[in-house]
Amino acid sequence: MSDGGEPTGDGDWTPENDAPDGWPVPLRGVTESVIATMGPNGLWNLAALGLHAGDPVTARTYGNTRTRRNFERRGGGVVQFVADPRPFVDAALSIREASEPVLPSADAWVEVDATLVDSWTEAGTTIREWELTPGESEVVREDPTTINRGFGAVVEATVAASRLGVAGFDDADLRERLDFLAGVVERAGGAREREAMTRIEEYADWDRPGN
Amino acid sequence: MSDGGEPTGDGDWTPENDAPDGWPVPLRGVTESVIATMGPNGLWNLAALGLHAGDPVTARTYGNTRTRRNFERRGGGVVQFVADPRPFVDAALSIREASEPVLPSADAWVEVDATLVDSWTEAGTTIREWELTPGESEVVREDPTTINRGFGAVVEATVAASRLGVAGFDDADLRERLDFLAGVVERAGGAREREAMTRIEEYADWDRPGN
Repeated sequence: MSDGGEPTGDGDWTPENDAPDGWPVPLRGVTESVIATMGPNGLWNLAALGLHAGDPVTARTYGNTRTRRNFERRGGGVVQFVADPRPFVDAALSIREASEPVLPSADAWVEVDATLVDSWTEAGTTIREWELTPGESEVVREDPTTINRGFGAVVEATVAASRLGVAGFDDADLRERLDFLAGVVERAGGAREREAMTRIEEYADWDRPGN
Repeated sequence: MSDGGEPTGDGDWTPENDAPDGWPVPLRGVTESVIATMGPNGLWNLAALGLHAGDPVTARTYGNTRTRRNFERRGGGVVQFVADPRPFVDAALSIREASEPVLPSADAWVEVDATLVDSWTEAGTTIREWELTPGESEVVREDPTTINRGFGAVVEATVAASRLGVAGFDDADLRERLDFLAGVVERAGGAREREAMTRIEEYADWDRPGN
């Protein structure tokens, strides 16, 4: 035997559970997605949407967003899963519209019906909970998973940037976190992460240190 | 036209560049991997290794680690890419050994020759830079990419935990960051991320708030 090691490594490892019925990918905890919903102008609005794993899968809208209004008008939309941090940032922090619902960058997508199941108010914001029922779906692209700290930092920075100026969050904490995350992207990100971070800086009321 | 949107969405999007010659996956910035190197006891030691994209691909060892010693003895090892945060945490923060080099959880792996190309000292630690030349490789598993904040938080927490007590890093900052990341895993992670965070707590001199 060795000094503290486990000679079996992760020999009892099994792949992640299958995707829930009707969903094109496995979901766990909160999986971040891009949601396309058709607006009154006939264009598809793109926004970020966190999918809460469970049976049924649920999602929340915060306040009077386009996604909330379009869910109410149209009863659903198209959930998609992107591997590129730039369309995620664009959807989350800017007004993006497209003539087609599925982004070229989507690795997978699924049409969903959205049914309002609950609503409550926190710090003056009405939070609505929607039950999502999957319809037609497609897996477009598959790759081995790789880990890049810069990618995670962009996602975390997107969340922080979206909370700047929002009641109930500490702006100084958020800015300090954004500064740290910008450094991670600088050191560990690829070209896409750097560009995504530049977009966050453009969309949000925040400038990275030294710029 | 719409109010601020770009009706083309990301219509000019193209998939990520191909993997570098001989590598099973695309690399960008610093891609985190698990490296298996054979130790003097005949078992494969598992550790974390950041791959710096470029031609050639390089990696750094910090101080007198098993990976460094085994690179020197054996001239290389087996790089692997895992999608499960638990084997990543195990490799990074604990002594793990296995009788076979490739983990069952590896989505892809590649044998590498490692050649020492540079070394320097920072804050008393000798950093060695290795050029990695790929050999035999395999893609074992492919999936659509999904985004989970908890996954990114585990990776970032692994880095922070590995720096506790290391010269040149501020322990209080690292602990504050770990506390924050534990909250992200709690709110957004799945079962694997929660278990990975529990392992970080076991391996590192840190306890999450409230525990």
